[in-house]
Amino acid sequence: MAFKTLGAKAAAALDKELMSTGAFSIDQLMELAGLSVSQVVYRVHPPTQGRRVLIACGPGNNGGDGLVAARHLRHYGYQPTVYYPKKPKNDLYQRLSKQLEDLEVPFVEDFPAALKSTDHVVDAIFGFSFSGEVREPFSAVIQALEETNVPVTSVDAPSSWSIEDGPPVSGVGSKFNPAVLVSLTAPKPLVKHFKGRHFIGGRFVTPAIAKKYDFEVPQYEGIDQCVEVGNGEQKL
Amino acid sequence: MAFKTLGAKAAAALDKELMSTGAFSIDQLMELAGLSVSQVVYRVHPPTQGRRVLIACGPGNNGGDGLVAARHLRHYGYQPTVYYPKKPKNDLYQRLSKQLEDLEVPFVEDFPAALKSTDHVVDAIFGFSFSGEVREPFSAVIQALEETNVPVTSVDAPSSWSIEDGPPVSGVGSKFNPAVLVSLTAPKPLVKHFKGRHFIGGRFVTPAIAKKYDFEVPQYEGIDQCVEVGNGEQKL
Repeated sequence: MAFKTLGAKAAAALDKELMSTGAFSIDQLMELAGLSVSQVVYRVHPPTQGRRVLIACGPGNNGGDGLVAARHLRHYGYQPTVYYPKKPKNDLYQRLSKQLEDLEVPFVEDFPAALKSTDHVVDAIFGFSFSGEVREPFSAVIQALEETNVPVTSVDAPSSWSIEDGPPVSGVGSKFNPAVLVSLTAPKPLVKHFKGRHFIGGRFVTPAIAKKYDFEVPQYEGIDQCVEVGNGEQKL
Repeated sequence: MAFKTLGAKAAAALDKELMSTGAFSIDQLMELAGLSVSQVVYRVHPPTQGRRVLIACGPGNNGGDGLVAARHLRHYGYQPTVYYPKKPKNDLYQRLSKQLEDLEVPFVEDFPAALKSTDHVVDAIFGFSFSGEVREPFSAVIQALEETNVPVTSVDAPSSWSIEDGPPVSGVGSKFNPAVLVSLTAPKPLVKHFKGRHFIGGRFVTPAIAKKYDFEVPQYEGIDQCVEVGNGEQKL
């Protein structure tokens, strides 16, 4: 039996609701989302397997989650490197970047070069609000991720994939198969096309919200902020 | 050899610096502080030993940390109850309270009654900015905590203790000996009077900040947001 999933429109409505009637600030939600991503990376690629993690951040909230994950990874003893070519002027992203600078996390501009000297990649380029075509510089980045042997953990969605329909039929992203996916709050419909290790993160959803949006809060263990749930063919 | 500790004035300056040049929002810091408190409670009192946790929240940031801890404890499967007699009008505390209401966490007004039916208490009444005398309703609460056999985890400071000098010489709080203390960012001088299990939480301090304020970032393990460091007589 397949997962109950959350389509792009429902995910946007849920996000909006969490920050209005749910009374969460975006700082809080992003902190917890990024924390869960960092815990997944620790689980699938502990620092003993290589400390170098390259985090590719897009211009929106998915990129913000990546910045938070990079900070926690640094505290866990990793050596993160951040690729953030379209840093918005937005105060929150500026602050998250400053927090990384204060930890001496390098920001790099040459993605292919950085990819050659990393042990793991976090794809925090596009999330549930993505649609349409991938433009430069991200199309070259996704192409590099399609071709690399370095394992990739994607945040919420493999970047370039349609939230509803999965990988593009042709062109950039059509061959992109990340090793790991972290679905935030709930899996998106694309998960049925995903073959790697699948986690859910974002342990802040109330039972009432899950019921309203017709998905299940997964069974997290102990204090974990993420849980592995198998691929789209398995039940929660 | 004793800890390097952070006095009340230095702790206030550090807090201010984290939120100015450090670029953290109070939402972020409180989320991570409260999360570390929740992890300590899970460590010292796992839900198998009793799920009922009473969180006593004061009117300031210490109380806010308690509200965040209560939310995470609820997600871990505890049954938290919150005592919050002086809820400020401040937007942040209102939002943290709403997040608990949405999880159906009860807010109670009768502290002695609540204390009779709990397995653990979190003392989030006063933190590093406390000085002077304890007033009602908190003096009765602290007196109840002095007399109870229920184990207490104090956040940053056993409430009523002087940050510099420890327990009051006489009166309310002079016999208050919580079982557990979570020092946030760094131990305060009062820790040398503390005899219980001692943890440090708040895994967001940069090496540069620790150096500037002359304390050490403790050796956290793995993805833990807290670390047990022994009492004030032991070295980190």
